[in-house]
Formats: sequence, C-alpha cells, structure tokens
Amino acid sequence: MYNIDMKKVKDIVADIVSKHTIENVVFVGCGASKSELYPGKYFLANASRKLRAAHYTASEFNTDTPDWLGESTVVISASLSGNTPETVQANSVAKAAGATVVSATHVDGSPLTKEADYTIVYGFQSNYAAKLEKMGYVMALALELLQQIEGYDKYEQMLTGFDKIFELAENSAQSARKAAKEFAAQYADAPVIYVMSSGASAEVAYSTSICLLMEMQWMNSGSFHTGEFFHGPFEIVDKDVPFILLMNDGKTRPVDARALTFLHRFDALTTVVDSKDYGLSGVVGSEVATYFNPMLHTAVFRVYAEELSIARQHPLSKRRYMWKLEY
Amino acid sequence: MYNIDMKKVKDIVADIVSKHTIENVVFVGCGASKSELYPGKYFLANASRKLRAAHYTASEFNTDTPDWLGESTVVISASLSGNTPETVQANSVAKAAGATVVSATHVDGSPLTKEADYTIVYGFQSNYAAKLEKMGYVMALALELLQQIEGYDKYEQMLTGFDKIFELAENSAQSARKAAKEFAAQYADAPVIYVMSSGASAEVAYSTSICLLMEMQWMNSGSFHTGEFFHGPFEIVDKDVPFILLMNDGKTRPVDARALTFLHRFDALTTVVDSKDYGLSGVVGSEVATYFNPMLHTAVFRVYAEELSIARQHPLSKRRYMWKLEY
Repeated sequence: MYNIDMKKVKDIVADIVSKHTIENVVFVGCGASKSELYPGKYFLANASRKLRAAHYTASEFNTDTPDWLGESTVVISASLSGNTPETVQANSVAKAAGATVVSATHVDGSPLTKEADYTIVYGFQSNYAAKLEKMGYVMALALELLQQIEGYDKYEQMLTGFDKIFELAENSAQSARKAAKEFAAQYADAPVIYVMSSGASAEVAYSTSICLLMEMQWMNSGSFHTGEFFHGPFEIVDKDVPFILLMNDGKTRPVDARALTFLHRFDALTTVVDSKDYGLSGVVGSEVATYFNPMLHTAVFRVYAEELSIARQHPLSKRRYMWKLEY
Repeated sequence: MYNIDMKKVKDIVADIVSKHTIENVVFVGCGASKSELYPGKYFLANASRKLRAAHYTASEFNTDTPDWLGESTVVISASLSGNTPETVQANSVAKAAGATVVSATHVDGSPLTKEADYTIVYGFQSNYAAKLEKMGYVMALALELLQQIEGYDKYEQMLTGFDKIFELAENSAQSARKAAKEFAAQYADAPVIYVMSSGASAEVAYSTSICLLMEMQWMNSGSFHTGEFFHGPFEIVDKDVPFILLMNDGKTRPVDARALTFLHRFDALTTVVDSKDYGLSGVVGSEVATYFNPMLHTAVFRVYAEELSIARQHPLSKRRYMWKLEY
C-alpha cells in the first residue's frame, strides 16, 4: 500500500544493463508528469560520476531531439493517463533511435505502453501516498541505474528512505488539514500567488504553480527557485503579494531559509510547507533527505490544493479547455 | 564592436584541454546571468556525445554541490558586476574541488575574477549587441569545448552564426521600436503578464518574466515553456490575460506555433516576438539557427522593456530592495 515494487525496478534495470551499455538517462514527460520526473533527474545528475542525465518536456524532445540519442540511452517517460500525445510520440522517437524505453503510467495497456520496452503501472487514487508512486518509481529507476552501472555509496540509505517516505508523506498530509484550511480561507480570492522551492523540490514549486493553481484553480501564478528569488522576483514583494515556500529539510535549506527571512522581514503574506516540521530527515535519514523532499511537499501541498478548491467552490477537476476540445 | 573575440575563446579552451581531461561542463550564475548561460548549456547538452553539461543557480551549486565536481570539470560562471556573492562563492567551491574556472564579467578586476583561472570581460552599455556578449561568449566557450574535445560537425556553421548574429540582433532591436511602443501602450497597466518560449530561448522567457517584468517593473508575471502551455498554464487563458510569445525560428518552432494557434483561437492578448520576422535562419544558417534565437529575442525584447518602462514612468534601474539594503 505505502510502497513501490523495488524488486520490479531492480529486475527492469538488470535486464537493461545486461543488454546495453548505458551512458545516458533521459526523463521525458509533460506538465505534472514532467515535474514528477525531476527528482529522479536531480538525484542522478548530482550523484552519478559517469551517466549523463537530461530532462525534457516531450514536445522539445520530439522536435529538437538530442544528437546523441541511440542505443546507449534509457528514456524514462511518464503519463498518468498514458494518453498524453507528446509523451506517446516521445516513446516512438526514442525507439526509432534505438533507445530503451521505460514508461510509467497509471493505466495499464494505455498508448504509452505500446512501444515501451518496460512498463510500470502505478497507483493514484487510493490515498496521498499513492499519488507519489510515479515520482517514487522514477527516483527508484534512477537509483538502480546508478547502482547497477557504477555503484552508489549511499544506496542502502536510499533504500531505507524509500521504505519510510510513503508512510511519512501519508501521515504528514493527513495532519496538514487544519493548516491547509487556514491557507485556503486566507487566499481563496488572491489575485496572484507565487510558489518557490529549491533542490530536488524545485519542480514541485513549478507544478504547484502551473498545475494546481493555474490549471486547476484558474489562479494567476508564477514560480521560481528560492536562490533566484534575490535576483529578480523579490522586487515584487509587498504586503499584499502572497508567497508559498516549500522549504527543504536537506542541503539547500539555507537557501530557502534566506528567502523566508526576507519574506518575514517585509511582512509578506507567506505560507510555509516545511519538510522539517514533518520530521523528514529524522525519518528517512539525514544523508539522503535532500532527495525525498519532493515526495513530502507533493503529498502535503495536495491537501492545501484540496482545501483551496473547496474554499473557491472550484473543483480540482474543473477545466475550460483540457479534455473539452481538440488543440 | 558587433562581435566577440573568438581567438581568445579558442586559446582559453586550448589551454584548458592541454592541462586536463574534461568530462563535465557546469554553468553557474544567478538571475539574468543564469538565464544567459542557458543557451550555452542547451547547445552543449544537445550536441555533445560525451561531455556532461549542468546548469545551476549559484546558491544550489554551493549548498548541494555535485558529488563529481573535480579536476575533470570546467565551471563557467558569469556575473555582470562580477560582484554577485553566490557566484563569487561558486568560484571558490569550484576551485576547492580542483575544477577549472572560466568567469565572464563586465567588470575587469571584480571579485569574480579573483579565483577564476580565466577571465572574459564583455561589453554591455554601448548598444543592444553589446548586451549579448555575455551570452555569446558562454555559447562560444561551449562550442570550443565541444570542438576541441570531441569535434562537432556543424562547427563552421556555428562560427558563421557568431559572425552574423550580433549585427542582425542590433538591427532587429533598432527596427522593433514601433512594435515595442504599441506593446507598452497596451500593457502598461496589465495586472499580470505571462511569457513563454521553447528550445534555447526557454530561459529568455524566464528572465523576461523574473528580471524585466518582476524586478525592473514590479509587474506580476510567470513564465513557462510553450510545450508545457497545454499541460497546465493554458487554463488561465481568457480575453484579459496577456501573453508574450518569444517565437523560435528553429527546431522547436512547431511547439511555439501550436501555442500561438491556441492563443489566437481564444482571442487572447498576445504579443509575438518572432525570430523569423527578423530573418534569423536566413542570416545565421538554418542548420544552427535554433541556437541563436536567444540572442535575437534578448536584443529585441530589451526594446520592449525600455518602452514599457517609459509608458509606466518606472525606470528599468528602479529598485526597492536590490542595491539598497543587506539581505
């Protein structure tokens, strides 16, 4: 329930490395799925001494396909419905170039699975932890590729982290309801909301902005890295401009903390979701906690989005264009 | 005047590769400088078959330093003033790990040059083309590293592109005044403006949003990739929400065109800066035009920002926090 099938991930990677010499790992998706690939890419790019990691929105991968795409590349693609046209096309582009494709989707037998060499089907509806399975599987694929190709000195610590994070994230989300209701009541009518984070969670801030706020609530929003805050965005800080800070319990915490200090100094409208409040590093281990922040932030902020949708009487599933017309 | 010193770039790279076996190229900066590093990173990540390319905001590089940083790495850092604390610190982090540092700055002798192994001083004030020298030098460093380490089959075409782009960008900017004035008149009081692009120009959209609009005009803004537009942000499209599209004349043009079609279909407030209108691929050559879009977009949109600042009676140099207090 609270976990992913690590044996399946190990077996997929073992099969890949038995057949190919892998030099490149490419993460391809769109929107929320693109952002959920980012923690796997972030981990691999920082931890691997040899593998090359790249991350694309699918349309860019399809139109400006990297020159080196070929047999030494694993493409990891993801789509909840398995029906995202650009991502399905990315699998075709990858296969045509001779790459190996691993696809993660919630829908077994969906178009994304057709050309994939390996398919992982993940959960979604049952609880908050289930909504992290996609991100977790992608991180686990990155970890196994690193371990089986070149070895990783914190491999066991990462496995411990995977063993702990789903339950921690579920419990954290369940405990966030009161804070989420307060957030929703305060910002239901906000004309704009900014979202920021850093490290592995940088694209949780991004997807919170473009998916949960813009797509699902039709609210104006922008997002940026907390380290970039001081190099542009902070000039927008004023008493009536709200910011959400997804604060990391990991290596980039000092970067987030500096942004928070500034926001407090100028009495900015500030909502903090802090992994440290939920005990992240204590539970998953401080050596690898950095990489697990995205799963915790994603689970907890989902509750904030739910409460916002209730306060605004705007269901998270309401759309005006998506699913309604061809484009 | 309209150019960069390619001989200097070649000599720097030749000296580096004579001393070290380079496997990684890391681009480090903050804000506008970070975004101006992106075209070099984008080029290298797509075109190199062996080198690993990475791109960081400096605070992240300093706090979550990649495990592999060492003698096989070239760090390319940039700062206009040469005085950005995080980027100056990044040079120290890089040197302490044994990496080679090439720093680009407008100010000779600035703190950024102190620990750099090689320094490039670029222009800025004299005209629009001068404002592209930083971006151009970084791209040229990426090109030379690729050529001298593993060879590049479009090397000569890229050199031709560098030979043409500065004059084209200057002339394009000079010819954009009328369109820029119309843009400024229409959006001087806009409550929010979104900016999007794709390919090598993705971070021109980003810096247009966080620097030109948020930092320099205190206007609300967000940015995203045109390919991501359909996976979240497009739900915000309404008749009174303005979008700026930096349209590429290159491989990702179909991605941009799809977004433009959607914006037109719903009568969205749309401002297009299209590299094709300025003849980019015809001038620099269609095989490499993709990589030169950021320079053209940056030059032309600078004129739009100038006109916006005039219409809003808000100088581009006006700040409330930056340069005024410690933070």
